[in-house]
Amino acid sequence: MKFTIKRTAFMNQLNNVSRAISSKSTIPILLGIKMTATEEGITLVGSDTELSIEGFLPIKDESLGLSIESTGSVVVTSRYFLEVIRKLPADTVTVEVNDQAIVNIQSGQSHFTLNGIDGNQYPLLPEIISEESIQLPTELFKELIAQTIISTSNQETRPILTGVNITLKGKQLTGVATDSHRLSQRTIEIMNDQELEIESMTIPKKTLNELSRIVEDEDHIKLIISDEQLIFALKNLTIYSRILEGNYPDTDRLIPTEHATRIVVNADTFYHAIDRASIMSNQGKNNVVRLEIEDQRVELSVYGSQLGSSNEAIETQTVTGESLQISFNPDYMKDALKTFNGTDIQMDFQSNVRPILLTAVEDETSSANLIQLLTPIRTH
Amino acid sequence: MKFTIKRTAFMNQLNNVSRAISSKSTIPILLGIKMTATEEGITLVGSDTELSIEGFLPIKDESLGLSIESTGSVVVTSRYFLEVIRKLPADTVTVEVNDQAIVNIQSGQSHFTLNGIDGNQYPLLPEIISEESIQLPTELFKELIAQTIISTSNQETRPILTGVNITLKGKQLTGVATDSHRLSQRTIEIMNDQELEIESMTIPKKTLNELSRIVEDEDHIKLIISDEQLIFALKNLTIYSRILEGNYPDTDRLIPTEHATRIVVNADTFYHAIDRASIMSNQGKNNVVRLEIEDQRVELSVYGSQLGSSNEAIETQTVTGESLQISFNPDYMKDALKTFNGTDIQMDFQSNVRPILLTAVEDETSSANLIQLLTPIRTH
Repeated sequence: MKFTIKRTAFMNQLNNVSRAISSKSTIPILLGIKMTATEEGITLVGSDTELSIEGFLPIKDESLGLSIESTGSVVVTSRYFLEVIRKLPADTVTVEVNDQAIVNIQSGQSHFTLNGIDGNQYPLLPEIISEESIQLPTELFKELIAQTIISTSNQETRPILTGVNITLKGKQLTGVATDSHRLSQRTIEIMNDQELEIESMTIPKKTLNELSRIVEDEDHIKLIISDEQLIFALKNLTIYSRILEGNYPDTDRLIPTEHATRIVVNADTFYHAIDRASIMSNQGKNNVVRLEIEDQRVELSVYGSQLGSSNEAIETQTVTGESLQISFNPDYMKDALKTFNGTDIQMDFQSNVRPILLTAVEDETSSANLIQLLTPIRTH
Repeated sequence: MKFTIKRTAFMNQLNNVSRAISSKSTIPILLGIKMTATEEGITLVGSDTELSIEGFLPIKDESLGLSIESTGSVVVTSRYFLEVIRKLPADTVTVEVNDQAIVNIQSGQSHFTLNGIDGNQYPLLPEIISEESIQLPTELFKELIAQTIISTSNQETRPILTGVNITLKGKQLTGVATDSHRLSQRTIEIMNDQELEIESMTIPKKTLNELSRIVEDEDHIKLIISDEQLIFALKNLTIYSRILEGNYPDTDRLIPTEHATRIVVNADTFYHAIDRASIMSNQGKNNVVRLEIEDQRVELSVYGSQLGSSNEAIETQTVTGESLQISFNPDYMKDALKTFNGTDIQMDFQSNVRPILLTAVEDETSSANLIQLLTPIRTH
């Protein structure tokens, strides 16, 4: 195979597919990028078996300056190939592969020779034959990812909790994540022309992270679903991912519908106060801050650290209901507050041992688009 | 003690003095910043015993918004104190210390209490009584630091090589550093009104690094020298450093005065070619690239790496003298090339086992302001 292409365009697509590759992989061929030249263009693939990303550089896209002299396929170590392409001196690069899978790279006066592997040895991507697809509005879906992924678990003891669970009923698409200490839930409205229903589908965190990073200026992402796999189809880029196995816990019953105390506060104001308090709490064994609500006074404090202590009166819009002292992990609270993007929120409390519910003031609490739930810490 | 000050000005000076503090210090009090309030202002000190930085916030500088209610002295853990001051909500901060060295910090609605240590327990800074001082032109001296510090040794087996050696004869101030694989030498011209002479003074790398980072918009740095100590005096900032003990090797005799081969090349062009070649050489056990000079052709290559190989013809201005094949460490060469800031340089070779000499084309080689010397690697 032999082709010539503009270096930056090639680089961008190499970067995209390399996101799927895990540098920790113990299977050598999976440290590589598969490059295939056909008469239609160049296809690039990176994979860690659970997530695969396929990028296409079409011959008909004239901005790529692509010319293909001969077709073929090779696998070349991603890390070095990317570094070589990035540092080459000229605007274009020519890649030529011989029968022994030796990859010759030429740009300006610079020549590189990399040892490759025959492309036929690379695992095949799953073939998904499915007519079931939905169009996701890119910006809203990226919001959903950012607002829920914070509550996914990092522990492999319950793998199902390491992903975001998606359900679709009518036009309402809901994402939920929980690590059993906190819960995030976001609902967005989508076009659902095929009137598809998704009862429960848990997408791995890595898939969603990489999708968020890769997707750029497209209005919609096409989601295609089969039994154990899903595809996010973008322009010239296809993301294959497995779906996490297992039953996702029923989270609806966890979300409180009543409250004994409510404060209304700006999310950013509260975030910065927590951020300050956590300087002290992060030092001790127990990373805990205390919130005290009494009459109209709301105070945040950290005591008992060897280092010292802190307290701060919080500026609130309104305070209603019973007095309360409640403690929580400030880092979890900061994660939750950030998802509200500086709007005013209501924090609802039932008691100091029941979860704290955060919703935007503009939302009706009973049917809020964005819910963050945080379990308090019992301090005595 | 009690004082109020503008938060950002306080923060800046805290950042400056904290640069001297080593987080690895095993002496707890040296993890702290000493704060002293007198009627003239606030003095801050950070130290790792070898390097101490003293910052002053004068009451007469109205831009600081400084008011001192009572005087005194305290030591407070640098890391947490800085983080608290940085995250406080209001433009001003009030610091109050009681008899038990408890430090109260207040800004807006936020209150912090940190446990401090009595300021009298902090080690005293050396008193340097010396009339001997020179004025260093800031920009030139920073250049000298950047251009020589690359060749200082990181190994404590020969401590003297971990610093930059300074000599002063007439108006010529010269800095030299060598780790025995490479050597950097820079000469600058200074005002030397006191007609001081420095025979040999080796300044620790850390001192020079921190001086470079701290010094901002002052034209000159005052250097005061005593037997074992030196002081860099800036406006409101004083850097105390020990001088490294021992005899610095005689480096003059190492600098070649003749050459058998000379190439003239742009420093940046050559840098990028080396940078590309080192992708390959960095993988193998031997981080070596080979330069081949034959007639007018100059070629850089890497062979024998398991990964692959690379070669590149280098664009040169002129090539004179004998043919040559020479190998060297590309990372050391990159460090040396960077110091020439994109100008054209001459590379002089005696043979493939003698040091490579780099000087700027505009310099007379025999009395060059900037010299970089690099020992080749014997490959067979």
